[in-house]
Amino acid sequence: MGSIINWQFHGSEGAKEASAATLGSYTSRIMAMCHPTPEKPILPPLSEAPETSHTAEKAVVKAVLMGSGNAYAPSIGLSEAKSAVAECLSRDLPNKLTGEDVFMTVGCKQAIALAVYITASPNSNILLPKPGFPWDMVHAIYRNVEVREYEFLREKDYEIDFDSVRAAADKNTSAILIINPHNPNGNTYSEAHLKKLAELARELKILVIADEVFRWTVFGNNPHVPMAKFSSTVPVISLGSLSKGWSVPGWRTGWIALHDLDGVLKSHKITTALKQFLAIDSKPATVIQAAVPTILKDTPKAFFERRQSFLREKSDVAFAKLKGIPALTCYHKTEACTFLWTELNLSMFANIKSDEEFCEKLASEENLVLLPGIAFGLQNWARHSIDMSVPELEVAFDRLKSFCDRHSKAPLKGKAANGLKQAKP
Amino acid sequence: MGSIINWQFHGSEGAKEASAATLGSYTSRIMAMCHPTPEKPILPPLSEAPETSHTAEKAVVKAVLMGSGNAYAPSIGLSEAKSAVAECLSRDLPNKLTGEDVFMTVGCKQAIALAVYITASPNSNILLPKPGFPWDMVHAIYRNVEVREYEFLREKDYEIDFDSVRAAADKNTSAILIINPHNPNGNTYSEAHLKKLAELARELKILVIADEVFRWTVFGNNPHVPMAKFSSTVPVISLGSLSKGWSVPGWRTGWIALHDLDGVLKSHKITTALKQFLAIDSKPATVIQAAVPTILKDTPKAFFERRQSFLREKSDVAFAKLKGIPALTCYHKTEACTFLWTELNLSMFANIKSDEEFCEKLASEENLVLLPGIAFGLQNWARHSIDMSVPELEVAFDRLKSFCDRHSKAPLKGKAANGLKQAKP
Repeated sequence: MGSIINWQFHGSEGAKEASAATLGSYTSRIMAMCHPTPEKPILPPLSEAPETSHTAEKAVVKAVLMGSGNAYAPSIGLSEAKSAVAECLSRDLPNKLTGEDVFMTVGCKQAIALAVYITASPNSNILLPKPGFPWDMVHAIYRNVEVREYEFLREKDYEIDFDSVRAAADKNTSAILIINPHNPNGNTYSEAHLKKLAELARELKILVIADEVFRWTVFGNNPHVPMAKFSSTVPVISLGSLSKGWSVPGWRTGWIALHDLDGVLKSHKITTALKQFLAIDSKPATVIQAAVPTILKDTPKAFFERRQSFLREKSDVAFAKLKGIPALTCYHKTEACTFLWTELNLSMFANIKSDEEFCEKLASEENLVLLPGIAFGLQNWARHSIDMSVPELEVAFDRLKSFCDRHSKAPLKGKAANGLKQAKP
Repeated sequence: MGSIINWQFHGSEGAKEASAATLGSYTSRIMAMCHPTPEKPILPPLSEAPETSHTAEKAVVKAVLMGSGNAYAPSIGLSEAKSAVAECLSRDLPNKLTGEDVFMTVGCKQAIALAVYITASPNSNILLPKPGFPWDMVHAIYRNVEVREYEFLREKDYEIDFDSVRAAADKNTSAILIINPHNPNGNTYSEAHLKKLAELARELKILVIADEVFRWTVFGNNPHVPMAKFSSTVPVISLGSLSKGWSVPGWRTGWIALHDLDGVLKSHKITTALKQFLAIDSKPATVIQAAVPTILKDTPKAFFERRQSFLREKSDVAFAKLKGIPALTCYHKTEACTFLWTELNLSMFANIKSDEEFCEKLASEENLVLLPGIAFGLQNWARHSIDMSVPELEVAFDRLKSFCDRHSKAPLKGKAANGLKQAKP
């Protein structure tokens, strides 16, 4: 009935390219290759998020039952949530924030997108980490901001390669975006390193945008130092959310905080731009915002410590298991976040030509889901989740080993090939 | 310290124009003119939303305590929420939906934005109601979609003026967006009228997008008829949310439903475009989505009836009070939504030249907040909230009358002026 009509509408292709590059899109494509059975279920398990803090649950329940989060919130966020985030972030900072410096967002993802939008101007470019979130990049591309990449020093525990920053920046660069703790590298930056970064950014006259969403899941020897500690040197925008620290990504509540320096974010209209973009974009649920003060103030330390200790054990187990798999190398044992990040030595495989092919075949043959490095902007690496029980993690790495063994070239052939790993001492 | 540096960044002006045109922006500007005192508080009162259904509260509380909404949901929405919306919308429809036809959004606002994005293509235009939501328009503008307006027949209870639709449409028109029940007109469309609209859209080869967010607050003699009843004639996209029906705009949970016709939305890539835009845009909280099935299935009818009866009474009171204010005319007593929509006869005032000036002075002198018609795309009208108690509503209209009396030209001068209202029999 309808198909004989030459309808005038057709779907926009405006989001086609960007949508294909999201982590969700990579995950779906890899997941679709799996054929789970009761004996061999998909790993990591398709379960719910780990249990959140009872304090957080009770705070949201209270907001629901009191009706205190049923109305629209202002587009910049609920005043009490903004103040609570300001107070929480200020604990470690010499320059204190007030509620006016904080804006509530739909998770950290919207905060990242907003940070890109507000600093974009015709011909401007931003510096993004490689590897890092593709999402930033696709959104930056989507919004016609030029993206330039900086790199890391593998031999210095993934510190930022300042030479690569300097090489990428020019007079049209507006900002450098850092991820700290870094996903997928899995490290945190030392205070001294961040101080140098602040000085470099000041020299380059650009602002620093710090995605610190993983700051509550740090379990190595190095503490997390917030970038805003150096907001007397350079203006800083910090991004965060409840998602990772409280294991509630489904609550979609985050923030963007402006750590101004002598009012330059105001005078350069960054604050105005942020308010304007917030006015037209989606808003986080008021009912969760209403719970934010209690969540941030009252969640017991023990909740975070339990989670950190859970992840520390998994990082140890995964790193040890990986030693038995010569084709994959992890250069830095995860000290934060919920992943292991490994380089693939493809020359050791008989029939695998890329990280994507590696992950697809692995999913198809072993029902094991890794994400290919290309999803984070770096080819021939892979990101392994460590957020599961020890038995599950052991099975995951056993499957990985068996897959790698099966696809390896014969040992002699392997040594003859001029693979990167074999060439080294 | 920072101000002596010639920083390279500056705020984007990308959202400047669009943000100034949102209802929120108009509301803030008008609210800022008020000087509330304990004796003369702002009206409508700055209170929370009306109480929601206990069923809805308990459903969210359960999702929070079970942890069933703590993880990321798929970007298209939680499967059980999609199915529940499909079932709920299908009740009145000959062509049933399945969960696959429904996509969860951050309130109805994101649904509106998505409907515009997905149907936009180079040189295409969409038909929007005048008056209607400015937000659609600013977003359409923001995304470089050409907006064309259609109008209403005041003498026919605000039916759509099909001649104006025909005049606005051309070969580049992709869709007509209707609001039903209509905000701010306050009416619902009859089945016969929607049938004619479907036939016209089919003739014009365009799809119909129906914002039906107010379908649960209908209290006049005419029932709400969903546009999708005619999805055998024309493909329909319907938009909705929990916000208005359950009085929980702060929960930010809505949906977009594709009522396809012989698969033309699929074959014309509308479905694909929607999935792609959802992949890169913000998501509604999973924890509310998890509660949607119970909310839609189990909320007792009595909850809606109480709210409808509350609004019916307010509509009666407001309409009656308005009769004493000759400068304002309401052509159709609200039978849905929470507003009265009136035309201002500015020629009757001595010193008021526009609807914006009217609303600003009213706020400043009477702490009474109306929104100017221009916020909805129609100059020299005003939207009055009726969502308050009878005593408050009476005070609001008393303040309005006293303001209008004070600013009126002397009676004789008023009659001499060739104002629209006086010129008529």
